[in-house]
Amino acid sequence: MSTLNVGLVGAGRIGRVHAENLAFRIPQANLVAVSDVIVEPAEQLAADYQVPSVYQDHRRILEDPAIDAVVICSSTDTHAQMIVESAERGKQIFCEKPIHLDLKEVDRALAAVQSGGVKLQIGFNRRFDHNFRQVQELVAEGRIGDPHIVRITSRDPEPPPISYIEVSGGIFLDQTIHDFDMARFLLGDEVDEIYATGGVRVDPAIGEAGDIDTALITLRYQSGALGSIDNSRKAVYGYDQRVEVFGSEGVIIVSNDKANTAILGDNKGMHGALPLFFFVERYTESYLVEMQEFIACVLHDRTPPVTGNDGRVPVIMGYAAKKSYDENRPVKLSEIVASA
Amino acid sequence: MSTLNVGLVGAGRIGRVHAENLAFRIPQANLVAVSDVIVEPAEQLAADYQVPSVYQDHRRILEDPAIDAVVICSSTDTHAQMIVESAERGKQIFCEKPIHLDLKEVDRALAAVQSGGVKLQIGFNRRFDHNFRQVQELVAEGRIGDPHIVRITSRDPEPPPISYIEVSGGIFLDQTIHDFDMARFLLGDEVDEIYATGGVRVDPAIGEAGDIDTALITLRYQSGALGSIDNSRKAVYGYDQRVEVFGSEGVIIVSNDKANTAILGDNKGMHGALPLFFFVERYTESYLVEMQEFIACVLHDRTPPVTGNDGRVPVIMGYAAKKSYDENRPVKLSEIVASA
Amino acid sequence: MSTLNVGLVGAGRIGRVHAENLAFRIPQANLVAVSDVIVEPAEQLAADYQVPSVYQDHRRILEDPAIDAVVICSSTDTHAQMIVESAERGKQIFCEKPIHLDLKEVDRALAAVQSGGVKLQIGFNRRFDHNFRQVQELVAEGRIGDPHIVRITSRDPEPPPISYIEVSGGIFLDQTIHDFDMARFLLGDEVDEIYATGGVRVDPAIGEAGDIDTALITLRYQSGALGSIDNSRKAVYGYDQRVEVFGSEGVIIVSNDKANTAILGDNKGMHGALPLFFFVERYTESYLVEMQEFIACVLHDRTPPVTGNDGRVPVIMGYAAKKSYDENRPVKLSEIVASA
Amino acid sequence: MSTLNVGLVGAGRIGRVHAENLAFRIPQANLVAVSDVIVEPAEQLAADYQVPSVYQDHRRILEDPAIDAVVICSSTDTHAQMIVESAERGKQIFCEKPIHLDLKEVDRALAAVQSGGVKLQIGFNRRFDHNFRQVQELVAEGRIGDPHIVRITSRDPEPPPISYIEVSGGIFLDQTIHDFDMARFLLGDEVDEIYATGGVRVDPAIGEAGDIDTALITLRYQSGALGSIDNSRKAVYGYDQRVEVFGSEGVIIVSNDKANTAILGDNKGMHGALPLFFFVERYTESYLVEMQEFIACVLHDRTPPVTGNDGRVPVIMGYAAKKSYDENRPVKLSEIVASA
Repeated sequence: MSTLNVGLVGAGRIGRVHAENLAFRIPQANLVAVSDVIVEPAEQLAADYQVPSVYQDHRRILEDPAIDAVVICSSTDTHAQMIVESAERGKQIFCEKPIHLDLKEVDRALAAVQSGGVKLQIGFNRRFDHNFRQVQELVAEGRIGDPHIVRITSRDPEPPPISYIEVSGGIFLDQTIHDFDMARFLLGDEVDEIYATGGVRVDPAIGEAGDIDTALITLRYQSGALGSIDNSRKAVYGYDQRVEVFGSEGVIIVSNDKANTAILGDNKGMHGALPLFFFVERYTESYLVEMQEFIACVLHDRTPPVTGNDGRVPVIMGYAAKKSYDENRPVKLSEIVASA
Repeated sequence: MSTLNVGLVGAGRIGRVHAENLAFRIPQANLVAVSDVIVEPAEQLAADYQVPSVYQDHRRILEDPAIDAVVICSSTDTHAQMIVESAERGKQIFCEKPIHLDLKEVDRALAAVQSGGVKLQIGFNRRFDHNFRQVQELVAEGRIGDPHIVRITSRDPEPPPISYIEVSGGIFLDQTIHDFDMARFLLGDEVDEIYATGGVRVDPAIGEAGDIDTALITLRYQSGALGSIDNSRKAVYGYDQRVEVFGSEGVIIVSNDKANTAILGDNKGMHGALPLFFFVERYTESYLVEMQEFIACVLHDRTPPVTGNDGRVPVIMGYAAKKSYDENRPVKLSEIVASA
Repeated sequence: MSTLNVGLVGAGRIGRVHAENLAFRIPQANLVAVSDVIVEPAEQLAADYQVPSVYQDHRRILEDPAIDAVVICSSTDTHAQMIVESAERGKQIFCEKPIHLDLKEVDRALAAVQSGGVKLQIGFNRRFDHNFRQVQELVAEGRIGDPHIVRITSRDPEPPPISYIEVSGGIFLDQTIHDFDMARFLLGDEVDEIYATGGVRVDPAIGEAGDIDTALITLRYQSGALGSIDNSRKAVYGYDQRVEVFGSEGVIIVSNDKANTAILGDNKGMHGALPLFFFVERYTESYLVEMQEFIACVLHDRTPPVTGNDGRVPVIMGYAAKKSYDENRPVKLSEIVASA
Repeated sequence: MSTLNVGLVGAGRIGRVHAENLAFRIPQANLVAVSDVIVEPAEQLAADYQVPSVYQDHRRILEDPAIDAVVICSSTDTHAQMIVESAERGKQIFCEKPIHLDLKEVDRALAAVQSGGVKLQIGFNRRFDHNFRQVQELVAEGRIGDPHIVRITSRDPEPPPISYIEVSGGIFLDQTIHDFDMARFLLGDEVDEIYATGGVRVDPAIGEAGDIDTALITLRYQSGALGSIDNSRKAVYGYDQRVEVFGSEGVIIVSNDKANTAILGDNKGMHGALPLFFFVERYTESYLVEMQEFIACVLHDRTPPVTGNDGRVPVIMGYAAKKSYDENRPVKLSEIVASA
């Protein structure tokens, strides 16, 4: 097999990102079908990216024996079920995160993947970003020795609509989940205990919806390394995505990508560009690379770089953070697993 | 007309860059044909970018009434003739730089464009780069007041083969020509006089081929502003592409784009990534933007942002620089035009 | 009174720093006497900085009616008693931090200052550093709006001797105490609750001495703002002293001061200088400015910029952090005060 | 001899800088006398820096057998004569630059130094700056291989008064002379030929005074390396002092020193501090280091790091630049020497 026939489930914003990459930038993939419960965006996507088949029912994709792999970009609450159905039909699976907000559903999906004998890659795209990948590689090469402290700053440029907040599962499962994945990725180490604090600083309406918009999370890794994540739903200067890993032999720090390198000096100061606005601008390349990796893993029968377990653990961490915040005490991940 | 049918002449490295952009990233363009005197790369290009027609003879493209525009990426010595032929057949023209190394040929091509009543855009892609565009815009907005000094550093990571050097027209017409365009672009002002000095510092073989590999060029603009360009054929740390404009109210400085923002601190120092290696990596985006602009200019009947005159003047500047270097004295552009 | 006669108690490393500033860089101060229980360094200091009188017994200074102010740089355990004695004799007081590791002793010293009607400035010199002062001023001017998150990175280049560790009061009262002061200074807000975690990552001997060498501390301010401090006793790349304040209207970030701005680019990367090695190099200027401020406050009868209360609160915070670490739970400052 | 008795001639701004360093920061020096034709500033200086003797006539210093060395900070037109008189009396000499604007006077001074058998150090303080010294050291160590291109940007924050311009000798001998010294210092190579261009861009009154305020100078070194210096009398963003050396194995770039490292990010951009305002702020440290070096060279009988020849050559370069500008052609230094 030298090329892969791919079906896309979900024609929303992230679905379009994957469609463009599959159609135009990954010669080893043929995007042959797209489905969406709302047919109009699917048809538009098909027109834009030259996709032959458009369906309303994703099962048309799953039942097509010519399709090797599915890319699941439907709404979060359907991910687990989509994984189960795809695995049962022997499709290779790329699925957006999170797998599900209910850990039992996550486990059901992962069980189906295992019994189906298929591959599953979770869409934690930031792992494929040029900056973070560089940090991870340098850490893995031992360039900073034994890791002691991880710092992750992750702030959005603007909060999502309140309607979204209401069904998001809360900041820890919606926004911090990316940072939980990053925390694991950077060190290749598991977190043992989490202490989360935070509050409503950006918009009272977020508080009224039962969520918080500013958070500070402390991680203790199994190795004894420490981690700190700070989140905000609103950084007026743009999408703030920085990490730092400090260890016995050094430190690695990444700063934000910016629109340009121009510095204007006038009689008031030296002025530079803002960070790239949001994830579509910031992570363009990482969406392409993750999909290239998925296609290559299927074609060459390799384990995907973001596994089902990599999708599962951050959900557990999200629950631990939530419990920690609610009870204002450090919570071990083992507590969450035990009570699940 | 909402989309444009485009034929591509020349399937070399830069031809492939334009092909990918036309085929996959500019919905307003249909890449319908490609030609190359060597048919193999043209066929490969057609396969990779889904181009229906492949020809050995570019006239097949020019004679096709369904084709609205041609993108000329053939060898430099054929550009002028291709422009003439295309203009005679009423095709809209995008042509790689330089138009020709012989000023008479340049003038013949521009005359044909004028009598043909077609548009011509020259491929000075760096004008569309995010960094340089930002500088130009801030200068044009008056953010640094009246420009006084322009500095351009333009160093390649490695010299081209000696066989290329021999037919390149010399460093001023081959490498500096981009910087001459940049010098005009940044200020929107014409250069009056040039003083060029330089030598063979990188490779004696370049000297034996009759060229130099290191140059320092002083520009005097008509406004009285001053400019300085430095060139090298070999910067071991990568492609060095920086500019600075200093004026009565401030300064704008751009630094290089890098592979990532990671800084590694260890007991020896703080270590960051190198500049992006060469023009394919560095100017990826600018090739897309220049082509988007060309397509939009044709569709909306606007003057292209890089005109025939913008292609002509840097050739004159190249001659002035060469004469200045040969005679070790400042040379006015008017001398070159008068003697042409 | 246009100049101030100053006596210095303690001729150790920090005593010499203050002596040089008082003798040579603050025309409004006359350094007229120095005392140290070990007379040799006091004599050397007197020779180097032209100090007329040298004593072994600090009371000789306190009893001299010509002396207006004392600068206390003796060992930490003597600070509180020195303050009491100085206040009783009506001397204006500059005292190195911390006032004392025992909160009762702190309170005794502050009571003496109050009944003596003298001024007391505590040597939290970092407040006078050009970088941190700039952050504080921008925050106070409202340039970042309402503060949401504070990040403080404070890592030493090398741990002190184990003999010092043993009497230091532990990392929270010895190293973090500076960061607790910084946390208060930057926002002008009090901390309500602290959660501290950490471990022995640098040197097992530090653990054997009953201390830790790596710490991560979460602060919750009374305003609801959040703070994060990370500490290490050993950063191989030098003294790492950075802060960041994020708020509703922006962010302010300071990076380290370096030995020079030179960047060397070679075929391996772009290499820059390390941060200045340690506090003597890094905070030279701040020691001068704090002393200038103290002298000016006495001469012009102003309240010193770092008060007795500013010396007291970080001690409470250190106790809260220690309790939090010991019991692995967030601890309110009010708990410490109540139990004191 | 373990300490040196020093007399200072000239109590102006730069005289005060040296006085403070000699009095307070260089234990090996005793500043025992100061003279100035205007006695008031000399008396003020003596009071501020505890100098025992104050004279109106510098000969009182030269005739004092207890004085080992003189530091000449009188007006430029007196430097050569002061050097001659000092050398005749066997005093070791530190003299501010330039030695004289008339090359014959320079030569007369250097001859006197030689026959007097004394040491002479010229006050090219920038050589002792932490940034430029680092560049020079890395170049000398061969870290960038064979030097190919030097770039020097040297812009003042504001022009001097027109009355000063009128007697300054012109921009090349007044402002660029520092950069000529830097150009020699960085490579340890002599310049063979200079091409200078420029104009009046800042203030027409400077043109009316017969000078220019903006200049661009091309250097060709004896080794074949190229250099470029740009000057302006007015950079609104502050004192702009940058250099870059590019060579076969790499590049070294220094940027400006700034008041602080704080970056403020708001919804308009990322804003940093301006460069330090002018030479007093920017080069504080270099004035101290050059004087420490002078004192050490005398005490340990070493050749001063900036010799009489180092004072002479930049004057020649200034003349070559002036001639080049006047005649708009490259001028060899040998032309100037031959015609002197």
